[in-house]
Amino acid sequence: MTPTSPGGIMATTTDSTAEIRRLLMAGPDFTLAAVDPRSTPGFDGGKSKGTAALAAGAKALSGLQEKLFAESRSGSGISVLLVLQGMDTSGKGGIVRHVVGLVDPQGVQHHAFKAPTEDERNHDFLWRIRRELPTPGMIGVFDRSHYEDVLVQRVRGLSSADEVEERYGAIRTFENEVAASGTRLLKVMLHISKDEQKTRLAERLERNDKYWKYNPGDVDERGYWEQYQEAYQLAVERTSTPDTPWYVVPADRKWYARLAVQHLLTGTLEDMQLSWPRATFDVETEKQRLQAS
Amino acid sequence: MTPTSPGGIMATTTDSTAEIRRLLMAGPDFTLAAVDPRSTPGFDGGKSKGTAALAAGAKALSGLQEKLFAESRSGSGISVLLVLQGMDTSGKGGIVRHVVGLVDPQGVQHHAFKAPTEDERNHDFLWRIRRELPTPGMIGVFDRSHYEDVLVQRVRGLSSADEVEERYGAIRTFENEVAASGTRLLKVMLHISKDEQKTRLAERLERNDKYWKYNPGDVDERGYWEQYQEAYQLAVERTSTPDTPWYVVPADRKWYARLAVQHLLTGTLEDMQLSWPRATFDVETEKQRLQAS
Repeated sequence: MTPTSPGGIMATTTDSTAEIRRLLMAGPDFTLAAVDPRSTPGFDGGKSKGTAALAAGAKALSGLQEKLFAESRSGSGISVLLVLQGMDTSGKGGIVRHVVGLVDPQGVQHHAFKAPTEDERNHDFLWRIRRELPTPGMIGVFDRSHYEDVLVQRVRGLSSADEVEERYGAIRTFENEVAASGTRLLKVMLHISKDEQKTRLAERLERNDKYWKYNPGDVDERGYWEQYQEAYQLAVERTSTPDTPWYVVPADRKWYARLAVQHLLTGTLEDMQLSWPRATFDVETEKQRLQAS
Repeated sequence: MTPTSPGGIMATTTDSTAEIRRLLMAGPDFTLAAVDPRSTPGFDGGKSKGTAALAAGAKALSGLQEKLFAESRSGSGISVLLVLQGMDTSGKGGIVRHVVGLVDPQGVQHHAFKAPTEDERNHDFLWRIRRELPTPGMIGVFDRSHYEDVLVQRVRGLSSADEVEERYGAIRTFENEVAASGTRLLKVMLHISKDEQKTRLAERLERNDKYWKYNPGDVDERGYWEQYQEAYQLAVERTSTPDTPWYVVPADRKWYARLAVQHLLTGTLEDMQLSWPRATFDVETEKQRLQAS
């Protein structure tokens, strides 16, 4: 039972955050097929309450981001990396715009991974990923990631099954290294239904200011929907570990997905027990020097 | 006379934008000492109206940014580069947070330049700048820039007068190249008074969540205030050209500086006459394919 205020908006961020994290984390028995993309785990309001809750949570998230950034100025090497995966139209961009977009852009390093270039293909699949890891104090955001190398590559037969299996091991090792170096990983899969995707793609064909978002190849990919679901199931199974878990977010309702990711990000930052750096100077002396200047 | 609605908020963005650009652009006779840091050229309201106008202008700016981004998907190579300069506490970070922060972070490439590293010092001063230029479709934001090499370097005698003079020429050539390659430059100097800086630094000594922003060296720099003003005067004189002009924004009132930069950025994007890319596919065919999928 989620604690709510009389108005239905979550009463305490922390309780709701813990609940949403618990409900969305992919544990050892995770089954993607059992997740209803239209469900709203941990939140018992509708769209208007969810939108209000998102706005209400912005300040806490923004404050935590600033603290993370501030800590880096006093030599802390910690950072956060939000990895966003999901089928086309699952709302990755909307998360960046409406959740990440509420914090100071100075504290965000965003990177959208496209199909690898020739140069990138000449390196190990993690090469281009390492280059985009967040620097200290930053929230890194990956729109797609190294997981494409075990998803599209598997589904479209661009890599062999053995190769993909090896990559899961490489990913676990890599992510453990990243975590050990002080970067908290928050891996999010936005889970939409095939019908919802059809609706969203259709919207892109209705308005001339949306055409640029449409790619005929997206319809071809729909033919592999089940294979993609299997690839996601396997990827989550293989790489959701206690230190680097996956969170699978029902995403047919955009407002819920955004609210849920806001909670996940807030919770990740809360875990870091951030604090404002102490003054490295004598405050009274500085007040006098400044006054005299 | 700025056209205003009865409520004092600008009636039409475009007229106000043109007026603010005209008033703030540094022409051949520019004199920094004649700019009052507390003035609000082109806007005749106060803080509350200015804040409301900033919020009201967000949608137009955001829409233009999306169009810029969309054009890049259809092969356009154009981009925008906002260069922010100003004394410590002049509000560069606030511009990023409150003006740039209103557009989609996916369309922004922000970089804060610090004192050059050893590696950077081993290269030409423009080397590290070139590496951070915005990619097509993006709004690049430089918090400090190559201008540090003619400002602090001149004031603190880190480079000789001759060297600095040569750099002005190098900067003009460089910026012309950048502009010719399709990147619109928007160079903004945030102009504060020495008293206002004192007030803002003092605030950082009053709250333990602000200590991290304070650096005792900032007080030392105040001893060179006049020399910095001279260096800015000279830099603007030498590098404000019709294609790459400087805009000098009175910045003692944060709300005005933010509103002014929003107008400058909006105007820069309007100049580009952006349009939504046409469909590169047959819309009706795609509707049918999607429906059948």
